[in-house]
Amino acid sequence: MSDVRVAGTGITAFGNMPERTGRDLFAQASIAAVEDSGVDRADVDAVFYGNFMGELAEHQGHQGPLMAEAAGVHAPATRYEAACASAGAAVRDAVYRIRAGAADVVLVGGVERMTNLGTAGATEALAIAADDLWEVRAGMTFPGAYALMAQAYFTEYGGEREDLAHIAVKNHENALPNEKAQYRSAIEVSDVLEAPMVSSPLGLYDSCPLSDGAAAMVLTSEAYAKEHDLEAPVAVTGTGQGGDRLALHDREHLARSPAARKAGEEAYADAGIDADDVDIAEVHDCFTIAEVLAIEALDLAGVGEGISAARDGRTTADGETPVNLSGGLKAKGHPVGATGVSQIAEIADMLAGEHPNSSFVEDATTGVAHNAGGTVASATVHVVEVVE
Amino acid sequence: MSDVRVAGTGITAFGNMPERTGRDLFAQASIAAVEDSGVDRADVDAVFYGNFMGELAEHQGHQGPLMAEAAGVHAPATRYEAACASAGAAVRDAVYRIRAGAADVVLVGGVERMTNLGTAGATEALAIAADDLWEVRAGMTFPGAYALMAQAYFTEYGGEREDLAHIAVKNHENALPNEKAQYRSAIEVSDVLEAPMVSSPLGLYDSCPLSDGAAAMVLTSEAYAKEHDLEAPVAVTGTGQGGDRLALHDREHLARSPAARKAGEEAYADAGIDADDVDIAEVHDCFTIAEVLAIEALDLAGVGEGISAARDGRTTADGETPVNLSGGLKAKGHPVGATGVSQIAEIADMLAGEHPNSSFVEDATTGVAHNAGGTVASATVHVVEVVE
Repeated sequence: MSDVRVAGTGITAFGNMPERTGRDLFAQASIAAVEDSGVDRADVDAVFYGNFMGELAEHQGHQGPLMAEAAGVHAPATRYEAACASAGAAVRDAVYRIRAGAADVVLVGGVERMTNLGTAGATEALAIAADDLWEVRAGMTFPGAYALMAQAYFTEYGGEREDLAHIAVKNHENALPNEKAQYRSAIEVSDVLEAPMVSSPLGLYDSCPLSDGAAAMVLTSEAYAKEHDLEAPVAVTGTGQGGDRLALHDREHLARSPAARKAGEEAYADAGIDADDVDIAEVHDCFTIAEVLAIEALDLAGVGEGISAARDGRTTADGETPVNLSGGLKAKGHPVGATGVSQIAEIADMLAGEHPNSSFVEDATTGVAHNAGGTVASATVHVVEVVE
Repeated sequence: MSDVRVAGTGITAFGNMPERTGRDLFAQASIAAVEDSGVDRADVDAVFYGNFMGELAEHQGHQGPLMAEAAGVHAPATRYEAACASAGAAVRDAVYRIRAGAADVVLVGGVERMTNLGTAGATEALAIAADDLWEVRAGMTFPGAYALMAQAYFTEYGGEREDLAHIAVKNHENALPNEKAQYRSAIEVSDVLEAPMVSSPLGLYDSCPLSDGAAAMVLTSEAYAKEHDLEAPVAVTGTGQGGDRLALHDREHLARSPAARKAGEEAYADAGIDADDVDIAEVHDCFTIAEVLAIEALDLAGVGEGISAARDGRTTADGETPVNLSGGLKAKGHPVGATGVSQIAEIADMLAGEHPNSSFVEDATTGVAHNAGGTVASATVHVVEVVE
């Protein structure tokens, strides 16, 4: 099977930009990706686009054609929605479309506009990723749901708030040189522990921010990349997806993510690698506990051992397997519909030596990106490798 | 390339059911489809799901996992949104997933819940398929947009309201024996012409209703169908998609649908057929004028000749190429996210001799389904054929 090459990447700054529209953000990211790729935009065969809450944030559905127009391409466009894993779902189908031989060049990206809703409005909008009948109407919010998952984890495997705090500290540290990151400020464990409590045991610094932003990539077939002499040494070599019951109370276990485990196993098998081969990972740390569950599901840490990984330095920039070297959702930001593409684009840039944090991973050849929706009722995992 | 077989279909009644939830509707359709297929639900590899306005109608995003649960399957699920072409987009990726060898059994379906919003609320919700900044805020509604398209058509090619009325009469006639149809009542041309005007030249009977409903299909690889000895003589043999500028004023022509033409050409080429091979068509007649534009775009009528097709009896049940033998969106109903799958399921049933209108098309072997989003900024076309 031929590789699906990452020919170009483009990411806007993530942050608080309530005055910018979704189409404006996507134009910036997609035009940057197309320029970075060296591909003639007339060659784009399709646009695969992730967005979560455009209906609520911008009163705008049917964003596929709108975003193709913003990108300046004439190609059919489809919007994918899997809550916070929307862009991961878009990448997945883009990979299969190219593998099926039905497209040579795909523009895949995502956008979210959130801060214009305000904190309360955005929290309410985010809640549509949960089960409206059985969770939201009972008062469930996502900080509350992840807090339950953290409490369950502590009860079953041990751990404490200070372990989680090391994850936030690490991800802020990683974001310092990343010009796209929303927070470029070092924090200390004491800052995390002393921050206002959001939902026990998760405080303000255990939580990712509300963010506006966009990310895009140009993916091409191997044949197209060679024919056009593109500089595209990195490929998406594996894809996987898992699903789970939407409502947290329907799960067998609150402190595990079987959907992410299935997605990881599928992606590893698809790429012909195993977890030991992974040099770097970008995982969906919407809350610090989510990073723990993710690295365990991806077999980058044993079950019950993820909690101490950051504190012990196993996942720090100079550790064995750096996790969220971009800054992660926690510090880089989390414009929901853009995150899944942004993660893969960051890894591709790191592996290509084009990232401010590439110096930490000079010998890295293999990365993995984990994107999750809701309380991980949806998960996509992609393997990204240097192939030439 | 191996065929993608239609192993089973399931459609709820379409109609006014404000008390039924989306998950309830999808459970009914998907369980019927799985039972009809003879497939063990444990074999379902993925769920591809179309929905348009769940965020507004049910305060529910992230419906993929919810609908997998409603269907009783444990498989990753993704929601596709391309306005009224959402389910067509889902089918398209399902076909490619199977062709790529990444799935043997896919449950593809769609749902919309609309009537609980009331007429004004649903009209406002539907408007998110148009450009919020440049159309909706200027007062644009979909009846208004299609009325502009009809006026442009009359100006360029001629035609009159009575021509359009024959389309409504035909589709109501077709719906009479269809137990799933929302309207099973014969109407006359005079009824259409005397009905209240909605947006000139389109009156109430030129417009499809607001509908609740769900549709589902089980698609399998040819190998799976043979291995499990499934009765699945019909296949989706061609898929195509086209895109256009979202806002009507950005189009080169108001009375043509280049997105549908591109989708049709791609689907015909994919299936290795041409328009002359098409025996029956289900097209997206959200308004009567839309059927005219659709059959011209699909080359089932020459440009400027679609307007007279129903009046002349070319597209009636006993005509050369019956169009919307199900009743179409006009009379069968249009639960937006379900329509694209419903159209293909209806054709598959007609070709398999399992439809109340099959007697009109006993020798038919080839059907085409056309699903459109917005003012045809998105279009998908699928070719469905008897293959054994």
